[in-house]
Parts: sequence; structure tokens; C-alpha cells
Amino acid sequence: MNRILFERDEIDDAGVARVRDARAAHIVNVLHGTVGQTLKTGEVNGLLGTGEITAIAADGEVAVQVHHTDAPLAPWVDLILAPPRPRVMKRLLPQLATLGVGRLVLVGAQKVEKDFWGATLLKEAIYRPLLIDGLMQGAVASRVPEILVRRNFRKFVQNELDALCADAARRIVAHPYADGGARAAEPSRADGRLVLAVGPEGGWTDAEVALLEAKGFARRSLGPRILRTDTATVALLARLAPAD
Amino acid sequence: MNRILFERDEIDDAGVARVRDARAAHIVNVLHGTVGQTLKTGEVNGLLGTGEITAIAADGEVAVQVHHTDAPLAPWVDLILAPPRPRVMKRLLPQLATLGVGRLVLVGAQKVEKDFWGATLLKEAIYRPLLIDGLMQGAVASRVPEILVRRNFRKFVQNELDALCADAARRIVAHPYADGGARAAEPSRADGRLVLAVGPEGGWTDAEVALLEAKGFARRSLGPRILRTDTATVALLARLAPAD
Repeated sequence: MNRILFERDEIDDAGVARVRDARAAHIVNVLHGTVGQTLKTGEVNGLLGTGEITAIAADGEVAVQVHHTDAPLAPWVDLILAPPRPRVMKRLLPQLATLGVGRLVLVGAQKVEKDFWGATLLKEAIYRPLLIDGLMQGAVASRVPEILVRRNFRKFVQNELDALCADAARRIVAHPYADGGARAAEPSRADGRLVLAVGPEGGWTDAEVALLEAKGFARRSLGPRILRTDTATVALLARLAPAD
Repeated sequence: MNRILFERDEIDDAGVARVRDARAAHIVNVLHGTVGQTLKTGEVNGLLGTGEITAIAADGEVAVQVHHTDAPLAPWVDLILAPPRPRVMKRLLPQLATLGVGRLVLVGAQKVEKDFWGATLLKEAIYRPLLIDGLMQGAVASRVPEILVRRNFRKFVQNELDALCADAARRIVAHPYADGGARAAEPSRADGRLVLAVGPEGGWTDAEVALLEAKGFARRSLGPRILRTDTATVALLARLAPAD
């Protein structure tokens, strides 16, 4: 936690946030917080700033007077992901939030394991805290990535993708087996929002890649090494990030 | 497992490899292997090629006649890493092997948790299979990354680093808090082997960065977002990879 984020309803009218969960424990045990100490704080989906510890109760509750006036960094990429196993997905979610993903569309590509769609991870009560952990790690953003589940890949691409990604100038599909197909150019730092599509462990089918190419997606490979979905996603986001 | 690797002593004089572990289970259950079927195979620290399944025994043993004639991809980067917690490190190790790390030096930077050095993960019997899993995922390399443990960071940098990394043309230190310091240029694809130094979760100390800068390391940041060590390592390797 490089920045403590509070939900709007945890902050009272006087601007005091009160927590008693893992954030309180982190403030006390890791940051060695004491009354009067200043922390980096922010509001989930809101502004960032600082907070001053005003009380640490015997029961573990920590009170922080917050001053939030700074705009957070905006997300720069939407990710269309054929999800890996829930265990891998669970590790990936906080990293996606840290890296600046704005919207995550989980799609039912052919080689996605069918039992993924029953995973408890798909409940907002489970995934939201993981995403907020990622934002607190990254320390510069507050917007919780939006998660959409679209099991019918063809229907999503043909009927919904254009409207959803209207502000995206670049569209790239990760294709580890790209062999002679069109390749995306190196991104310019002036390029706009990106939509990145990452396939399942077994890869996209030819028909799936064709659907995306018909919607203007350019193929992008990460070289001859075959990466796990989670490694490939982080690696591609790193390579495609517009600024560093 | 996108390529099955066999140890030299698992291959007999007639070129037949026999296994009955997770690789055998993968061949039977995931690849639905049958006698006569051809697989991508290779020898650990040796050549790559193909193998033909010659027998699947009732007890699960799989025999494969191998033909290994192709040179594997060579590692392109050495990593000096102030290790994260063992649990995170364990997840990172296969990814490092997949991504082409040749040598991994685990160093005792000041903010490394002291109990890391007692981790069972540091036993070769534990980490070697994880590295080979990573090579089998990547499918194009066979060389097991060498792991060195150097708890005295200053001594390692001052006395050993130059000799160890004599063939490295580029030296880069990841520094998330780089603020106005020298920055590494974008790598050219013609650049030689790289040495990358990645600090602990809490960051390098100023003295540690100074030690590395004195040895020709240029600072490199991944932007304003603060990444976890494992995310940062994968992201930096992706950005610094010479070819894709």
C-alpha cells in the first residue's frame, strides 16, 4: 500500500475517514503511524491527496483527516481478456489495476476453460478489493477498473466492441503465433487510448483473430518465447504503455 | 508445457527418454499423447528437437525417442534482484526462465526482509524444477538460469560484478523513484547482453543506487505507477528485450 484509498462513505462530512481493516493494520504495523503523522491518501474513484492521522483507537480503528485536491492518473488502456484459471486471474487483477487498465472485458474465447465462468472471483465483492489493492500499490490512480463478462465472444466483438471502445485510437491483439501476419507498429507517445486483446492459454482460434482483425486490430507478438497469459499481459502492457 | 525437456541422464544411449512424473501426465492427459505421436522436446541445457512417443506403460511411464539437433535460444539478460517474499519469488522464478534470464543474482539490499535468506526456495532441489517449468513454457530455450546468492551487496558490486558481467554491454538499474537522475536510452536491437538490477519492495537506498551508478548502471523508471517487484521485473524485461 503506497497510498491508502478510502471509500466515499468511509469519509464523514468533516473529512475524517475511519477504518479498522487491513488498511488500519498497515498504517499501524507497516507505516508505524502515530497521531499527527501524514500519509498519502485518496478517495476510491475520486481525488488524491494527503491525510493526517488524528486518532488510533485501542480497538484498532484509525481516524484520518483527509485533504484530497489532486487529480488521479486516468486509465490508458482497456483489456479484452480470455481469462486464465481463476487462481492466475486472481493474481493478475491487482496488477491490471496498478498498470492503468480502465476496463476489463472477460470474453468466452473457445479455449477458455468452461468452469471459469462459475468462479467466485467473478463476484464484485471478491474482485473489487483486489482491484483497490492494485490501485493502492500503484499510488497514483483511484478509478476502479470496470469488469464486464461477455461469454459470447463473437456477439461482443460484432455488436458491442465499437461502441465500448469508441475513444480508442489503437487496437492490438496479442498473438504469440503471429507468423507473417500484419504487425502493430511501435506506439507513439502521442497515441490515444489503447484496446488490447489477450487470448487464452491455448491461443486464439483463427476465426477469433479474424473477427478482431475485421474490427481494426493489428497483431502483436512478444517474440518466439511462449509466455503464460499473466506474464504476456503484463509484458504487453509494459511494451505498449505510451509514456515512462 | 509447450515443449517437454528431458534431463541428460533420462535419455539412454539409443536416444530414448523415459519419464513418469508431471511430464508424463501432461503428455497423456493434456496432449492426449498416443504411441507414434510427435512432440516438441529438448534436453535440459542441450539441444531442442522432436520426440516420438514409443510406449505408454500401464504404470504411467512414457517413452519418447528423441531427435535433438536444433540450437536453443540463448539467454539475453542477467538479473540482479533484491528478492521479494519467497511466495512472490516462487511465482517469479518460472517467468524469469521463460523470459530469457541467464543468471539471477539474489542480493542482500538493505530493505530485503532478513528471513528471506532462510527460505527453502533457495535450495536447488526446490528452485530448479520451477526454472525448468519456465523453460518448458517458453518452448525455445533449454539453459537453466544460474542462481547466485550474494547477501553482501556492496562486496558483490565492488568485487565481483565486473567479472561476472564482462559480456554485458548495457547496465540498467530499475529505480521507481528516479527523479531527475540519468535515464537509460531506449535499447537498440543491436545492443548486446543486458544486466538489469531490480531493487526490493521498499526500493534501493541512495547508497545502493550510487554503488551501481559507479559501475556504469543507468537509471530506468517505469513511470509514475509504483509496481510490485514481480510486476516491475516482468515489465522491465519486456521493455528492454532487444527483439520481438
